[in-house]
Amino acid sequence: MSVQIAPISTSLPTFLSSKNYSKVLVLVDEQTNKYCLPKIQSLLPSQFVKVLIKSGESQKNLDTCIKIWDVMTRHNLDRHALMINLGGGVIGDMGGFCASTYKRGIDFIQVPTTLLAQVDASVGGKLGIDFQGLKNHLGVFQLPKAVLIDPAFIDTLSEKEKRSGFAEVIKHCMIRDVEKWNEVRLIDWQDNNFSSLVAHSVAIKQAVVEEDPKEAGIRKILNWGHTLGHAVETFLLNQGKRKILHGEAVAVGMITEAFIAHQRDLISLEELEEIEVYLFATYGKVHIDESEIGEIIALTLQDKKNLGGEVRFSLLTGIGDCGYDIPVSKAEMKKALQYYIG
Amino acid sequence: MSVQIAPISTSLPTFLSSKNYSKVLVLVDEQTNKYCLPKIQSLLPSQFVKVLIKSGESQKNLDTCIKIWDVMTRHNLDRHALMINLGGGVIGDMGGFCASTYKRGIDFIQVPTTLLAQVDASVGGKLGIDFQGLKNHLGVFQLPKAVLIDPAFIDTLSEKEKRSGFAEVIKHCMIRDVEKWNEVRLIDWQDNNFSSLVAHSVAIKQAVVEEDPKEAGIRKILNWGHTLGHAVETFLLNQGKRKILHGEAVAVGMITEAFIAHQRDLISLEELEEIEVYLFATYGKVHIDESEIGEIIALTLQDKKNLGGEVRFSLLTGIGDCGYDIPVSKAEMKKALQYYIG
Repeated sequence: MSVQIAPISTSLPTFLSSKNYSKVLVLVDEQTNKYCLPKIQSLLPSQFVKVLIKSGESQKNLDTCIKIWDVMTRHNLDRHALMINLGGGVIGDMGGFCASTYKRGIDFIQVPTTLLAQVDASVGGKLGIDFQGLKNHLGVFQLPKAVLIDPAFIDTLSEKEKRSGFAEVIKHCMIRDVEKWNEVRLIDWQDNNFSSLVAHSVAIKQAVVEEDPKEAGIRKILNWGHTLGHAVETFLLNQGKRKILHGEAVAVGMITEAFIAHQRDLISLEELEEIEVYLFATYGKVHIDESEIGEIIALTLQDKKNLGGEVRFSLLTGIGDCGYDIPVSKAEMKKALQYYIG
Repeated sequence: MSVQIAPISTSLPTFLSSKNYSKVLVLVDEQTNKYCLPKIQSLLPSQFVKVLIKSGESQKNLDTCIKIWDVMTRHNLDRHALMINLGGGVIGDMGGFCASTYKRGIDFIQVPTTLLAQVDASVGGKLGIDFQGLKNHLGVFQLPKAVLIDPAFIDTLSEKEKRSGFAEVIKHCMIRDVEKWNEVRLIDWQDNNFSSLVAHSVAIKQAVVEEDPKEAGIRKILNWGHTLGHAVETFLLNQGKRKILHGEAVAVGMITEAFIAHQRDLISLEELEEIEVYLFATYGKVHIDESEIGEIIALTLQDKKNLGGEVRFSLLTGIGDCGYDIPVSKAEMKKALQYYIG
């Protein structure tokens, strides 16, 4: 898989001219239709097919897939067609899933337009949709033909969305690069050079994914902060108006999972505090009620890293270092969430 | 992928004891629940989960997948679970698709119980479901962990079903083994040694699939008889009560596509007649009205071998030899269907 960090005005024409696709379909949501498609429209074949879906994680389900597959079918897309996923993680994950299952798979490329998708979702071939409120419960592993990352798209984002994506940048530092973490944590998050951070995160993610594409082992460290993070995200998504962004949930996950690591003497109190102070300062505190802890813990039972009835975490073993396949008890999770609530 | 032709009472326990699955789920339909599950029940872990669906091609759709994914979710199946698909092509294709997309893929094995599934669907990793009446329109390529073929299951079939599966046996002879064809065509189809025919067909299919797993080239010859065959099958399926079995449709496809090959001087008149006489004697003639030809031809536009607007066939270039990626015009298809109608 080729990941290119370059202006889309050069990377996309180069990619398209290297192939001979029978048709090109572009998947966009309301946001990217308005702010991003105009930037690439002139680079596409004039007869391209547009599929426009509503924005948001709540669209990432089978009903929306059915709409996408329907458009593909009505336009008689054959196996030699290309799908371009222009958007954030929802567009990339769901579009990639639809492309990978249409006629047993057609080519697709990811053009991630959010910081979150650029540093995380677009790289590594995890595709999927939510099912019965469970995140990415249905999906496949399938690499896109290319990932075309243009950091200029980050400028189309709101501060909130940019901050959400930034959580994955922090995660990559925390599991693999303590030096970078020591640079980043000393400045206000907004003062970073985002182009350089995108390249840094993509390099870490690519290295890990290449080592273990199907997540049999080491790739699980990329899931640090995501076991409790996903559970909190799913729980609040199902509460309607309390929905939070992915990175905000991952920040909760990183704090609570750092706490568990500290309780097991895997990281020191100083390290826990360093993480916690920075993340609370950057993300604030998500309101969770003590009475909701049980339901959140129950959701971790659906985590994909589990084995049998056992919930398995990736846990820091120091900043810049992460272990995986570590069984964690419900009591430990409860204590960590109580600690977070304060 | 390991394909084993052996009594299920030895092959299944050997497979299960070689792995350490967290849970085992068995997918059956009304038929295999009644006639086949009793033969393997004692070989399974006592806590196995059963998913029972209705029989028939009309069940091979997203609605049924949702039911299957729902049971998998409710039983908290993790990534280390196994799905056993006990049944014909519908069970194998759809069960394999559900397993391959649940949590981005869990292990599954195929235990084909029909002749059709034993000689065709279970081997080669093509999985999928119908969508908007289009056959196998959604799916993935994914190899099962094992294919356990027990020819004794053939005895549970009706004559009609057995004959349907036999069409794929004929197809394998016709595209790759003229000597076998010259043996088979001289005796009544029911007088064959089916265990030996299953082994013969599986060997041909495996060899072709290994050469070209994703159907970029030579694998397309396995689709001989299926371009018009699928179109006829889909057309009649959508007519409700005129539904025919897959092999019956493939017989129509083999006759009409042999006619096209003859028209192009790829096979002789003697060869066409040899094929036609045998297939009409074995399968009879499916009633198609002249006025329906247009709709049938329109359905070939959705064939997965197509490129752009062009419908591409695999065509015999002699008995025992087959070409592929051959564009065929609507006029040629019309003439072939008119020839079939007679």
